[in-house]
Amino acid sequence: MTASVSNNPKNRPPENNWRNTLYTIIFEADTPAGKLFDEVLILSILLSIIVVMLDSVSSFAAIYGDLFYTLEWIFTILFTVEYFLRLICVGRPIRYATSFFGIIDLLAILPTYLGLLLPGGRYLVVIRGLRLLRVFRVLKLAQYMGEADLLIRALRASRRKITLFLFTVLTLVVILGSLMYVIEGAESGFTSIPRSIYWAIITLTTVGYGDIVPETNLGQALASVIMIIGYSIIAVPTGIVTSEITYASKYFKGRVCQNCSFEGHDIDAKFCKRCGAKL
Amino acid sequence: MTASVSNNPKNRPPENNWRNTLYTIIFEADTPAGKLFDEVLILSILLSIIVVMLDSVSSFAAIYGDLFYTLEWIFTILFTVEYFLRLICVGRPIRYATSFFGIIDLLAILPTYLGLLLPGGRYLVVIRGLRLLRVFRVLKLAQYMGEADLLIRALRASRRKITLFLFTVLTLVVILGSLMYVIEGAESGFTSIPRSIYWAIITLTTVGYGDIVPETNLGQALASVIMIIGYSIIAVPTGIVTSEITYASKYFKGRVCQNCSFEGHDIDAKFCKRCGAKL
Amino acid sequence: MTASVSNNPKNRPPENNWRNTLYTIIFEADTPAGKLFDEVLILSILLSIIVVMLDSVSSFAAIYGDLFYTLEWIFTILFTVEYFLRLICVGRPIRYATSFFGIIDLLAILPTYLGLLLPGGRYLVVIRGLRLLRVFRVLKLAQYMGEADLLIRALRASRRKITLFLFTVLTLVVILGSLMYVIEGAESGFTSIPRSIYWAIITLTTVGYGDIVPETNLGQALASVIMIIGYSIIAVPTGIVTSEITYASKYFKGRVCQNCSFEGHDIDAKFCKRCGAKL
Amino acid sequence: MTASVSNNPKNRPPENNWRNTLYTIIFEADTPAGKLFDEVLILSILLSIIVVMLDSVSSFAAIYGDLFYTLEWIFTILFTVEYFLRLICVGRPIRYATSFFGIIDLLAILPTYLGLLLPGGRYLVVIRGLRLLRVFRVLKLAQYMGEADLLIRALRASRRKITLFLFTVLTLVVILGSLMYVIEGAESGFTSIPRSIYWAIITLTTVGYGDIVPETNLGQALASVIMIIGYSIIAVPTGIVTSEITYASKYFKGRVCQNCSFEGHDIDAKFCKRCGAKL
Repeated sequence: MTASVSNNPKNRPPENNWRNTLYTIIFEADTPAGKLFDEVLILSILLSIIVVMLDSVSSFAAIYGDLFYTLEWIFTILFTVEYFLRLICVGRPIRYATSFFGIIDLLAILPTYLGLLLPGGRYLVVIRGLRLLRVFRVLKLAQYMGEADLLIRALRASRRKITLFLFTVLTLVVILGSLMYVIEGAESGFTSIPRSIYWAIITLTTVGYGDIVPETNLGQALASVIMIIGYSIIAVPTGIVTSEITYASKYFKGRVCQNCSFEGHDIDAKFCKRCGAKL
Repeated sequence: MTASVSNNPKNRPPENNWRNTLYTIIFEADTPAGKLFDEVLILSILLSIIVVMLDSVSSFAAIYGDLFYTLEWIFTILFTVEYFLRLICVGRPIRYATSFFGIIDLLAILPTYLGLLLPGGRYLVVIRGLRLLRVFRVLKLAQYMGEADLLIRALRASRRKITLFLFTVLTLVVILGSLMYVIEGAESGFTSIPRSIYWAIITLTTVGYGDIVPETNLGQALASVIMIIGYSIIAVPTGIVTSEITYASKYFKGRVCQNCSFEGHDIDAKFCKRCGAKL
Repeated sequence: MTASVSNNPKNRPPENNWRNTLYTIIFEADTPAGKLFDEVLILSILLSIIVVMLDSVSSFAAIYGDLFYTLEWIFTILFTVEYFLRLICVGRPIRYATSFFGIIDLLAILPTYLGLLLPGGRYLVVIRGLRLLRVFRVLKLAQYMGEADLLIRALRASRRKITLFLFTVLTLVVILGSLMYVIEGAESGFTSIPRSIYWAIITLTTVGYGDIVPETNLGQALASVIMIIGYSIIAVPTGIVTSEITYASKYFKGRVCQNCSFEGHDIDAKFCKRCGAKL
Repeated sequence: MTASVSNNPKNRPPENNWRNTLYTIIFEADTPAGKLFDEVLILSILLSIIVVMLDSVSSFAAIYGDLFYTLEWIFTILFTVEYFLRLICVGRPIRYATSFFGIIDLLAILPTYLGLLLPGGRYLVVIRGLRLLRVFRVLKLAQYMGEADLLIRALRASRRKITLFLFTVLTLVVILGSLMYVIEGAESGFTSIPRSIYWAIITLTTVGYGDIVPETNLGQALASVIMIIGYSIIAVPTGIVTSEITYASKYFKGRVCQNCSFEGHDIDAKFCKRCGAKL
């Protein structure tokens, strides 16, 4: 077999025919077998999530409960086998097991086993949805990856500003929530400071369930102030992220090949993909 | 008849006096007759929508029900005749029938006929509202078209980023909704995973009906987290769209005629509309 | 008296001592008397609004109702006298009476008289609040005016895009509201198409009162779609306005005096306010 | 003792060994003792807030009430001692006592004493949370400070535009609220103009509790208009803040060392932190 270019060659096992072939099928998507494997995997993940969702609807569970239960175990056993195959065929199993995707792959099979001990726990298998991220990466949806990269870059660049903003919001809701607790008291539903903070979050974020509502005049006046604060400061994270996205986009879009004036290079490209000139 | 410049000359029927005249009246708005036709059409569409709306109000329907019913059929028959006239006078009837506006023209008359089989179906005639889009295009509200063009361009440029964002939001609500189902359980109204996901969407988008509300402490804590996430990540689509609109606007506004320094050219203009110099 | 520079010299009456003096006091704020008049006016407007508000609270009205009623008439008579003085001392009374501020000045006194015929009508005197706009203008809060000018300019520049956006939103809520009417029907509170459209607006704008709520599975699924649409398309007006404000600000801030490099000129300045060089 | 660089050397007391040492410990964080003091302080503040929160939950208070009460007094006495130590060791006690942080330090201890007179008042000790701001400043989280500086700069630059926006929003809710009071009247919950204004704020900010809801057709139509206004004008503060943050960021990011092309200087840096060249 000629070596296909792997995602991360360091994870590839040393020369060993069957492990190498398995690795190519499971971790890559360049061969027909690898692509088929990934497509079957996406389908299985989606189906197993749908089964669990339907199982939680009591009218469906009453009729098809046994079928759903059987299917769930079939999917779980399949994913368990897959997990061990990944462990076997990868070059450094411990590095894989402790990687972001390795942990998600494990979390995706645990809930069903957990469900044997804790009824209800098995519904957490929807965490399997996160596995789709890996498969999408393997399928190399290149343009989406470029855009995702840009967004992540923008969010990472603004992480400190966002942290400051969230810290301010948290301080605000703690102080305003406690103030409301003192003003309104238990008879309006503000039964404790944590519950009043919960109300302040509902109000500041403009969610407004209406399950707890101020009833005194002073309380309604303070609530009005909180609403207007919440309505105004949403501008801050938006401004931060917009500014970073604009900056990242400009950098991204501004890269034009000096030789052939081609635009739209990948964000990490060093050479023009059309004429090969250095960027 | 001197040939008026048509919207799309390929759709124009071959030399044939009455079909050509009909085409000019129905599909164009450059002649007085064509303009009158379009204006009558806009009025009819608006009136037919108002009739259906009033008919749905039981107090009006009780008194004027028969009148509304008669009017609705009159409008539907008129639009049906118009649809067939369009089919007849257009150069390539199949291409028209399968075009975006051709389908909308058909959908605009079907609900009334459908209402004979399915009571309630006839209320869907409000889809006629979409026909206004075509008429506005025919009326050549040029500046609005330019702006709409710019907005559509910006949205199209950000479609991949928006898709990524919506995919992230969907994954979030599925996982968080399931978690809430496990935490809260049926007695608080979280009766199934799909219903919990519905609640998660209500909370994340900051709509907050309050029809389903967490009641346990852990549930309220998780709800607070979802609210703050929803309040913060709204910044992402806003940032994306703002960045693209700014980019598109700059391109749009930056175009100044080198010869006479006139600004505000159409987005697809190749020559200055004031002095004719090449842009 | 030396002629002070008036706001709009064309409105100034022809040489006539007492009318000219009155004009200076009422319409301008450059003389001590004029400034005092404006300050008394602001106070009277604010007081008259507060009186009407308190009068609407039944517990206050029960005790101080007569006092409030007397005060309201005193303020109304004062404002009526002021309105006629404005008419008398202005150069062209009809132009004033039909101007934006002339109409507001009239609307500010009518509700109390209207209240003699229509009980409840008198609460509309809060429209007096709009008069504050004029007084603020007279007080020449120069920097605020510059900023307001910039904002109005940005909003005016984006009016066509905003109109397109609102038209799209309206078409969306009409079609989605009607669809919900067909899906949910009267038993869930969707009693008519207009009411369903009202619900669609509540949902799309993420207000979410919770007074009308979908109960069928299909209805909740469609509601989820509407919420996510509403959550996403808020990005469009934000993007439009942000783009225009950024553009206007850049123009505003970019203006640097070539001679003394002073920044921060008024948006309509033609000469540097520090060194007098032409900009 | 060699003089360590203080935050604000003017506050440092004149040559006086024990006061100087105390000042270094309490107000600075460059020595091990100073750093330890700040870390213990952060912990005490967080613990004292948690104690008050738990104490407000009746089920906890029933069991641990006495413990919480004792702990609260211990923290309060500690903070009182700390406050007087700050007064003693600072160079100009009155300037400290009247400074922003001096007032917060005082407010952080008053509520417990106030609680002796006014039950409920003691819950206001959560205001201690604001003290964290000072400690964070002392700890010199330099990069966070730079970002916070940028945000504050952007918000300060937009304060006039935000004031104009808030003034417009206030005028809107007063007029629209009064109009709703006239339209809906007391039977729908619009019992007074202040309460109707409260409702208008709930609606305009898209919070939408649903505790007060219009019931007449006209009222629902006006409510729809308010919602759409609220949904649209959120774009204005967002646009303002975004524009200023973009402007401030550009200034911040654009600063590249001419000598070594290092980016990312502090906003107030005058020399390159890598090569020392003048910026």
